[in-house]
Amino acid sequence: MSGKKLGRQTFLLPSAPAVIGWASVVGRKEGQGPLRTYFHEIWQDSYHGKDTWEQAEQAMQTRALELALERSNLSSEALDALLGGDLNNQCIATAYAARGLSVPLAGLYGACSTMAEALGLGAMLLDGGFGSRIGAVVSSHFCTAERQYRTPLEYGGQRAPTAQWTATAAGSLVLARKGWGPRVTHVTLGKVVDRGIRDANNMGAAMAPAAFETLRCHFSDTGRAPSDYDLIVTGDLGALGRDLVAELFRREGQTLTNYDDCGLMLFDRRRQKVCCGASGCGCSAAVLCSLLLEGLMTGRWQRLLFCGTGALHSPAALGQGESIPGICHAVALEGPGEEKEERG
Amino acid sequence: MSGKKLGRQTFLLPSAPAVIGWASVVGRKEGQGPLRTYFHEIWQDSYHGKDTWEQAEQAMQTRALELALERSNLSSEALDALLGGDLNNQCIATAYAARGLSVPLAGLYGACSTMAEALGLGAMLLDGGFGSRIGAVVSSHFCTAERQYRTPLEYGGQRAPTAQWTATAAGSLVLARKGWGPRVTHVTLGKVVDRGIRDANNMGAAMAPAAFETLRCHFSDTGRAPSDYDLIVTGDLGALGRDLVAELFRREGQTLTNYDDCGLMLFDRRRQKVCCGASGCGCSAAVLCSLLLEGLMTGRWQRLLFCGTGALHSPAALGQGESIPGICHAVALEGPGEEKEERG
Repeated sequence: MSGKKLGRQTFLLPSAPAVIGWASVVGRKEGQGPLRTYFHEIWQDSYHGKDTWEQAEQAMQTRALELALERSNLSSEALDALLGGDLNNQCIATAYAARGLSVPLAGLYGACSTMAEALGLGAMLLDGGFGSRIGAVVSSHFCTAERQYRTPLEYGGQRAPTAQWTATAAGSLVLARKGWGPRVTHVTLGKVVDRGIRDANNMGAAMAPAAFETLRCHFSDTGRAPSDYDLIVTGDLGALGRDLVAELFRREGQTLTNYDDCGLMLFDRRRQKVCCGASGCGCSAAVLCSLLLEGLMTGRWQRLLFCGTGALHSPAALGQGESIPGICHAVALEGPGEEKEERG
Repeated sequence: MSGKKLGRQTFLLPSAPAVIGWASVVGRKEGQGPLRTYFHEIWQDSYHGKDTWEQAEQAMQTRALELALERSNLSSEALDALLGGDLNNQCIATAYAARGLSVPLAGLYGACSTMAEALGLGAMLLDGGFGSRIGAVVSSHFCTAERQYRTPLEYGGQRAPTAQWTATAAGSLVLARKGWGPRVTHVTLGKVVDRGIRDANNMGAAMAPAAFETLRCHFSDTGRAPSDYDLIVTGDLGALGRDLVAELFRREGQTLTNYDDCGLMLFDRRRQKVCCGASGCGCSAAVLCSLLLEGLMTGRWQRLLFCGTGALHSPAALGQGESIPGICHAVALEGPGEEKEERG
C-alpha cells in the first residue's frame, strides 16, 4: 500500500488502483468525429439550453461526473475526493460543477494535461491509503476557450494552419482502491519545459518538447521501451506536435512505436476543418474516458501510456512577450487483469 | 506509511511528514505590518526591477522557493515534486517560476486556499510513500490581482468597507518524509460551499460558510474540540469573515477558542488602510511560512489548525450573475516533538 519512486520522476503504485467507471460528454462537432460511437452523450447545442457557454461547460462537467458515477454504481457521496480542472480563468467550470456536490474538491491546473494530472494524483492518493474512491473531472469548451485565450468568436479571426481546435468535451472517471477496471501502475510527473515558442496558434510545437522529456524519462525510470506499450498516446499535440515528438525520438535513434495523439484521434482532419487537430483539457479527457479506457477493458490494448500535455501560458503572459512553457504527465495503465479472465 | 480516512472528509497521516524548511518573501506594505520581523525578505518595489508585475510575482515565487530550499540545506534537484499555484489567469506565476527548475510540477488551483491544498496534498503524497521531499510554493501580488479580478489600478476605484487588500507575498515550504520540523498530522479536504454572496468586494462573507463547514467537519471527524488546538487560524477571511465564522459556531453553542485569521494578522488595520484585512493566496502562505511554522518550531504553539480559505469565482462568472463559491482545506500541524527535546 505504499508508493515507490523509480528513477527521477516516476512513481510506482504497488496496489494499482482501478478505474471503475468513466464517461465522456462532447459537443456536436466532436460527436461527428471518428470516436462518436464511444462517447456517452453528444450535446448538439453549444449553450445546451444555458444562458452562457461557461454555464454550458459547467453543466457538461456535472453530467460527465454523473454518468461516470452511474456507470460505477455509485452516488457522489461515495467519493472521498474529487480532483478536477478546466481552462477557464480561475477554473470556474470545475468550481461551479463541484458546488452542487457533497464531495471535497482539490482543484488542479495543468492546462490540457489536467486529466493526466488528476488521474495520476488520484491514483497515488488511493495507493497511499487515502480513501477508497476518488473522482476526476475535466472539461474544455471551444467557445469559452476562444474568448479566454484568443479572440471573441464574434471577431471571426482566421485560423492559422498550425492552430488546433479546442474540444467541447468533458471526461470524468472514478478511481477505486479495490474494484475492477483498467489499473494505474505508474505515474511520471512532468517538469515545465520551455523551448521559446511564442505563437499562441502553435501549441503543438510548444508542448512537444515537454512530451518528449517526460516520455524519455518514463522509459529510463521504468526500464521500459516504447514497444512495451500497446499504445502510447500523447494529447493534445496535434499533427505538428506529434511529428515533432516522433522526430525528437528519431534523432536519439529510437522509433516511437504504436504512437498516437488524442488531438489527432478526436476529429477527422480531412473532413472537419480543424487545422492541426484538437486541443483543450476536454480532448484528452474525453478520448481517455471513451476509446482508451474501453479499449483497455475489452483487451484491445493490454498496456497503455497516457501522456497529457499542457501549455502553461496565458494571454497576459504572451502579451508581455513571454514564451509558452509546456508540461506533460504520463500515466501507465494496464488492462483489468485476472478478474477479467474470471469474468470472460 | 499508509493514510487512513477519519469520518467524512479527514485523512490521518500516520507518518506525519515534517516541514523541514520554509520562507516568505513579501512586498513593502506587508513588510511594514506586524509580522515584519518574521519574513525572510521584504521587497520594496512592486516591480522588483522587472518589466511587469506578473514577472515580479513570478520572481517572488522563485525567491521564496530558493530560500525555503536553502533553509532546508537542499538544492531543488532534491525535490521529488513541486505543488503550487497562484491567482493569475492560468496560474502563470507558478508555471513560469517552475520553468527554471528541474522538478516535476503539479499545478493546483484553490484560490486563496492554495497553500493549505499544497501542504495537505504534499504531506499525503509523502505519507503514501511517494518520494522523500516535496516542495510547495504559492503567491499573490496586489497589482496583478487587482487588474485580474477587479479594475486596473490606474482606474483608481474606491474600496468598499468590506474589501480586503490582496497581499503581495509568496510563501514556500519543503516537506520531508523523514526530517525534523513541524509535522502534518491530519488533512481535512473541503467541499465547495456557496451561500449566494455576489459581491466581489466581500470575499470574507463568501468564504466564511466554507470555513465553518470544514472546521465543523474536522472536529467531528477527529473527535477533537477547538480547545484541543493552541491556535486555529483561517485565512484569509478578514474581519467580517472571521466574525461570521465565530458567530456560526456560537449559534451551535460552541465557542471558537484561540481563533485568528491570516487576513487579520498580516496588516495592522488601524494603521494600514486595508479595510477588512488582507487576502490573496500569498497572505496565508506568507503567514504560515513565517510566524506560524516558526511558532510551532519554538514551542509557542504545540498544535495548530491551518485552514486555507478560497473564493472560487472569476470576473466572468460574476459578470454572468453567478454567486461566489467558497472552499476551505484544513491541515493540522504539531510541533516537531521528541527530537526537539533532544535538541533543546
